[in-house]
Amino acid sequence: MHQTPAEQLEHLSPAESRSRFRAGTVAPTSGWSGGYTQTNLVSLPRDWAYDFLLFAQRNPKPCPLLDVSDAGSHTTVLAPGADIRKDLPAYRIWENGALVGEVSDASDAWRDDLVSFHIGCSFTFETSLIEAGVPLRHREQQVNVPMYVTQRQCRPAGRISGPLVVSMRPIPASLVATAVTASHRMPDVHGAPVHVGDPQSLLVDGIDRPQFGDAVAFQPGDVPVFWACGVTPQAAIMASGIPFAITHAPGHMLITDQPDHEHISGNQHAV
Amino acid sequence: MHQTPAEQLEHLSPAESRSRFRAGTVAPTSGWSGGYTQTNLVSLPRDWAYDFLLFAQRNPKPCPLLDVSDAGSHTTVLAPGADIRKDLPAYRIWENGALVGEVSDASDAWRDDLVSFHIGCSFTFETSLIEAGVPLRHREQQVNVPMYVTQRQCRPAGRISGPLVVSMRPIPASLVATAVTASHRMPDVHGAPVHVGDPQSLLVDGIDRPQFGDAVAFQPGDVPVFWACGVTPQAAIMASGIPFAITHAPGHMLITDQPDHEHISGNQHAV
Repeated sequence: MHQTPAEQLEHLSPAESRSRFRAGTVAPTSGWSGGYTQTNLVSLPRDWAYDFLLFAQRNPKPCPLLDVSDAGSHTTVLAPGADIRKDLPAYRIWENGALVGEVSDASDAWRDDLVSFHIGCSFTFETSLIEAGVPLRHREQQVNVPMYVTQRQCRPAGRISGPLVVSMRPIPASLVATAVTASHRMPDVHGAPVHVGDPQSLLVDGIDRPQFGDAVAFQPGDVPVFWACGVTPQAAIMASGIPFAITHAPGHMLITDQPDHEHISGNQHAV
Repeated sequence: MHQTPAEQLEHLSPAESRSRFRAGTVAPTSGWSGGYTQTNLVSLPRDWAYDFLLFAQRNPKPCPLLDVSDAGSHTTVLAPGADIRKDLPAYRIWENGALVGEVSDASDAWRDDLVSFHIGCSFTFETSLIEAGVPLRHREQQVNVPMYVTQRQCRPAGRISGPLVVSMRPIPASLVATAVTASHRMPDVHGAPVHVGDPQSLLVDGIDRPQFGDAVAFQPGDVPVFWACGVTPQAAIMASGIPFAITHAPGHMLITDQPDHEHISGNQHAV
């Protein structure tokens, strides 16, 4: 049976996708290895790990932790065999809260005192939205989902603070409730929306000017729906001036071996 | 209208209950301030806080964190106005993994480097079980719920390890599914059971010999149903030889101002 290139990427196993990225492919991971969980990466010095772990505990909607690696480890239980220094397509390097570089292999920047946090990603609940019949305008328009800095501050933890960052999807008014309930079933990949409609009371700037990702066109009758976003830690790195960090580049995630359906509430296997 | 003493306790506000405990009343908190969340307390030196926070992240069913206080603080967002050194009816003091004392006021033992962890409690889902028509044998028999050390180890974190501890409730076979689904809706107060039936494959000792709480009598047709238990951290304190800790005494919890219904999946207000 003939497969388009996109279908071929969708049917790659997680290990096959990771080996392509390890070999040098750089591409957004949306649509790769369909049905498997993708995660946001934040790697910080051990000295900052407690503050970040507490920040995640206090802000579970933007920072749902799926795993925390031991200091210096470049492995995760989410993807046995993966090397998290190499197996993402693109990384960002941060110093004193400023972005200083973007690389496709983070081995040279790696440090033995780094603790890695693996955070749930909205790509997981997008699968549920599609299955529920909810159209995703950014996919139709083949752009990255738009992400916005908001007026809402996260609950601080130690030296870490920063604004909530949200992703936005235009949803037909008749399907807003469906989008809410489908994502609500997945609390560890951001869960239900934090805001529906009325962008002015949430955003620091206009809905046509996202701070991350791309602007997306609305169809008549679409309502803007906002979900807490895993880019929130990158805003906190900037706001808090964290001395050193490695993160994924937005949209360029770790593809894990964990099936998306494990994130439906109650399907988790953790003790 | 006439109220029995138990009904009077049930209708005390959380602040009224706490003020009685602060004034010296020592009593198990089951049945006090009905409809409000009670929490397990674990206070550890700052040096151990990261390991414990990671232990809780890696073992969310026994250790669902509802709040973490800053080092030295004796307040919590769960109960504004409460002094967590004084407002529980009874505390346990631990040194090098050994229980060294039980007190009704922990002020003298308090240290400025203590970080306090507030962990969800099965009393919250018991309210849901009762509302769903599930009988609770330990309440009928007016004893503490039985708790058992299991053969299952928690996922370790740094210097902290230990066995999973479970609570057990005998449930009529026709109501086991109801008990599962009612507790499943409350993932941050231990969620669905970890084991149903077949005690031999789970426990380290007989079902008639709980390590904490009291043995409870089965009615004909009852099946033993096991939930992850907030006493698990006390087993980890013992197994890991943590140098110093203050915890609640089993059954003697912090009564918070947070309504139980906020723990129904999706009702949470956290960012």
